[in-house]
Amino acid sequence: MNEKEVIGKLSGLGNKVLKDIKSVKDPDIQLPVRALSNIYFDEKSKLIKLGDKTSHRSYMNIAHTRKFMQTLLVAAECKKIIDQNVSTSIRDLYYAVKHTIPGTKENTFEEQSESDPIIEDIEATLNTLREQLHLQADRKGYIAGSLVINDTGDEIDCGKMGSSGWAIPSNAEPDVIKFKKCDAEYVLMVEKDAVWQRLNQDKFWQKQNCLIITGKGQPARGTRRIVNRLHKELNLPIYVLTDADPWGYYIYSVLKQGSINLSFLSDRIGTPKAKFIGLTTMDVEKFGIPKNVTIRLTEGDKKRTVEMLNYVWFKPKEWQDELKNMMKVGYKLELEALSAKGIKYISEKYLPEKINNKEFLP
Amino acid sequence: MNEKEVIGKLSGLGNKVLKDIKSVKDPDIQLPVRALSNIYFDEKSKLIKLGDKTSHRSYMNIAHTRKFMQTLLVAAECKKIIDQNVSTSIRDLYYAVKHTIPGTKENTFEEQSESDPIIEDIEATLNTLREQLHLQADRKGYIAGSLVINDTGDEIDCGKMGSSGWAIPSNAEPDVIKFKKCDAEYVLMVEKDAVWQRLNQDKFWQKQNCLIITGKGQPARGTRRIVNRLHKELNLPIYVLTDADPWGYYIYSVLKQGSINLSFLSDRIGTPKAKFIGLTTMDVEKFGIPKNVTIRLTEGDKKRTVEMLNYVWFKPKEWQDELKNMMKVGYKLELEALSAKGIKYISEKYLPEKINNKEFLP
Repeated sequence: MNEKEVIGKLSGLGNKVLKDIKSVKDPDIQLPVRALSNIYFDEKSKLIKLGDKTSHRSYMNIAHTRKFMQTLLVAAECKKIIDQNVSTSIRDLYYAVKHTIPGTKENTFEEQSESDPIIEDIEATLNTLREQLHLQADRKGYIAGSLVINDTGDEIDCGKMGSSGWAIPSNAEPDVIKFKKCDAEYVLMVEKDAVWQRLNQDKFWQKQNCLIITGKGQPARGTRRIVNRLHKELNLPIYVLTDADPWGYYIYSVLKQGSINLSFLSDRIGTPKAKFIGLTTMDVEKFGIPKNVTIRLTEGDKKRTVEMLNYVWFKPKEWQDELKNMMKVGYKLELEALSAKGIKYISEKYLPEKINNKEFLP
Repeated sequence: MNEKEVIGKLSGLGNKVLKDIKSVKDPDIQLPVRALSNIYFDEKSKLIKLGDKTSHRSYMNIAHTRKFMQTLLVAAECKKIIDQNVSTSIRDLYYAVKHTIPGTKENTFEEQSESDPIIEDIEATLNTLREQLHLQADRKGYIAGSLVINDTGDEIDCGKMGSSGWAIPSNAEPDVIKFKKCDAEYVLMVEKDAVWQRLNQDKFWQKQNCLIITGKGQPARGTRRIVNRLHKELNLPIYVLTDADPWGYYIYSVLKQGSINLSFLSDRIGTPKAKFIGLTTMDVEKFGIPKNVTIRLTEGDKKRTVEMLNYVWFKPKEWQDELKNMMKVGYKLELEALSAKGIKYISEKYLPEKINNKEFLP
C-alpha cells in the first residue's frame, strides 16, 4: 500500500463521518474487535489472525463520545504528518493531539495510554501499518552479513559494518528499505545481542554465508518486518536461536505466527516457516553442557510451560517432547551457558552441527 | 594503554600472588575503595574522582577468601579471552568462571551479581577499561552527521546511514574505532531516540553541520566514550538536550562529570566542558509552550530536585535558578512537549535559536 492509498483511507474515514453529519445521522465508525474473542489460529497460513467481528463507535452514544473524538483527532494528525512528509514517535503524537477543549476544563487525552490503543484501532480499521501512518515504533535490532540495502537513498552494505552491524530502523517497509543484493543462504535470528556480538566477532556470517540478526530480546516491529521480508522476498530460510526458557520460546512463537495483540499484522510481521535451532533443555545431555550452568525453573516458568503445552503451535511432537523434558528436568538455561564449553563453542561447534544436520524444531 | 600492557597488568596481578605463595606469605591483593567515602569532586578537572584509599583482599582471611578466589578467576579469564583475541559479554564471563569446586558442593559464583562488581574491582585496580579487558557492556547509541570512522577495517560514513544512523558499539576505544574525517562543527547529544529520529529526518545535522547522537536514555559506556573522544580528539563542543526533569538533568551530569559508581573512569567517559542546551522549565514561558503538556512533579521528583540543589556541579547560578524554578512551578516536561508547537518546531526554531544565541546552562 502506498502513501496515496493510506491518505485515501484516512480521508475516507473522515468523509464517511462528514457524510453522516450532513445527512443528520449519528456519526459512526466501524472497527474490528481486537480481543481474544475475535482471534483464531489460521491453520492454512499458520498465523494468528483477527476474526471478522466488528463493533461501532458512535458520536451520540455518550459511552463512545470521548473515544470517537480521540479516533478522529489521531486519524487527522496522522494525515497531517503524512501530508508534511515527516514521521513522528507515538509519544510525540500524543503531545500533538493533547489539548484542552476550548470552553471546558476537559483534555482530549490525559495519558499516552489513551492514544496508543487508538493508533492500533486505526491500524486495524484501515488495515495499515503504524509505520505507514508515519509513526515510529521502538528500534533495537542489528544485522550483519552479505546483504546490501538502500535506505532513503543511502546504500548500506551489512557486510561492512564493523563491530556494530546495520541498525534496523523502526520503519522497515519496502518504500524505505530496499534489498539491493544478497548472497546469504539463510538467516540466523538471535535473541541476545551479546551472542550476536560473539558471532559477529567470530565472523560466523562470513564462514557460514548467512545473515545474523538480533532483536535484543523480543524484536521490535521493524526487526520482525525485516525477517518477514527476507523470507518472503529473498526466500531465505529463517533459523531462530533463543534461550531454553519459556520467554525464549515465546519470542520464537511471536516471530513465527504473530501475537494476539498485533493479530491484524500477522501476515506482515509473522514468518510461519521460521524454524527453531535452539537452545533446548534436550541439548544439555546431547552437547554435554555442565549441569551447574542450568537454572532452576520458577513457579511462573512451570505454569507458563504447562500453558504452552496446550497451544496449537506447540502441538508438534518435537515441541511436546521439549516442553515435557523441561518440566521433567526442572531447569532452563541461557545461550551463554554454552560458554562453559569454551568461548567459541557456539560458533564453531554447536551452530554448525545443528545446521548441517538440519536439527530444527518446527 | 595497548593490549600488551593490559596483559602485563593482569600477569603482574597473578605473579604478585604467586610470589606471595612461594615466599609462604598470605597471598594478598590491594584494591582501591570504591565507595562514597573515597569519592571527591575534583575542582581542577571538574570530574568526579576516586580517592586513594585502598583496602586489602587476602586469601587467609576467611571473610576475604571467596572474593579473593573470584578476583583471581575473573582476572585469569580476562587474560584468556584477550590471549584468544576474542571478547565476550559480562554474562558470558559469569558462565565461563562459574563451576563447582571439585570435591565440594560449593560453586565459585552463584549469581552474575557476584561477578559484575569483581570486574569493576579489576578495572579500578589495574586502571583499565572493561572494554580493554575485552568485555562488552550494553550498547544502544546512534550517530548521524559528517563523520567518517573506521571500525576494525570497515570504513563507515555516518552521513550516509539512512534513517538508522551508525550504531555505536560497546567498545569505542581508539584501537577499534578510529576517527578518519570530520567536518561537523559541534555535537548535539540527545536523550531520546524518538527526538533523534525526528532531527535525522529533518536532516538537522546537514543544515546545522553538526553530529547528532542519542544514548536512548542514560547513555551506555561506549556512547559516553565516543562523546568524550569527539571532544578531546576533535575539539568539538558538546551540547546536551534532555527532558526538563530530574532524570534528564542527571543524565547530563553523568555525561559531564562522571558517576560515583564509575568514578575510576571519569576522565575517559566524562566530558566536563559539555553544555546543557535544554529543555528547561524556564523554556515554558520563553517559548510559549502550552501548560497542558507539562507534567506535575512527583514527591520523588521534588526530593531529587532538592538534593540536586546541593550538588557542587549544580551550584552555578543558572542551574540554581532552573532548579528553584522547577520547584516553584511544580512541573516537569518532556522534549516531545515541543511538538505541541508543531512537529518541526524543535529542529527549525527551538534548537537553532538556542545555538545561535549560545543560550546554554553550564
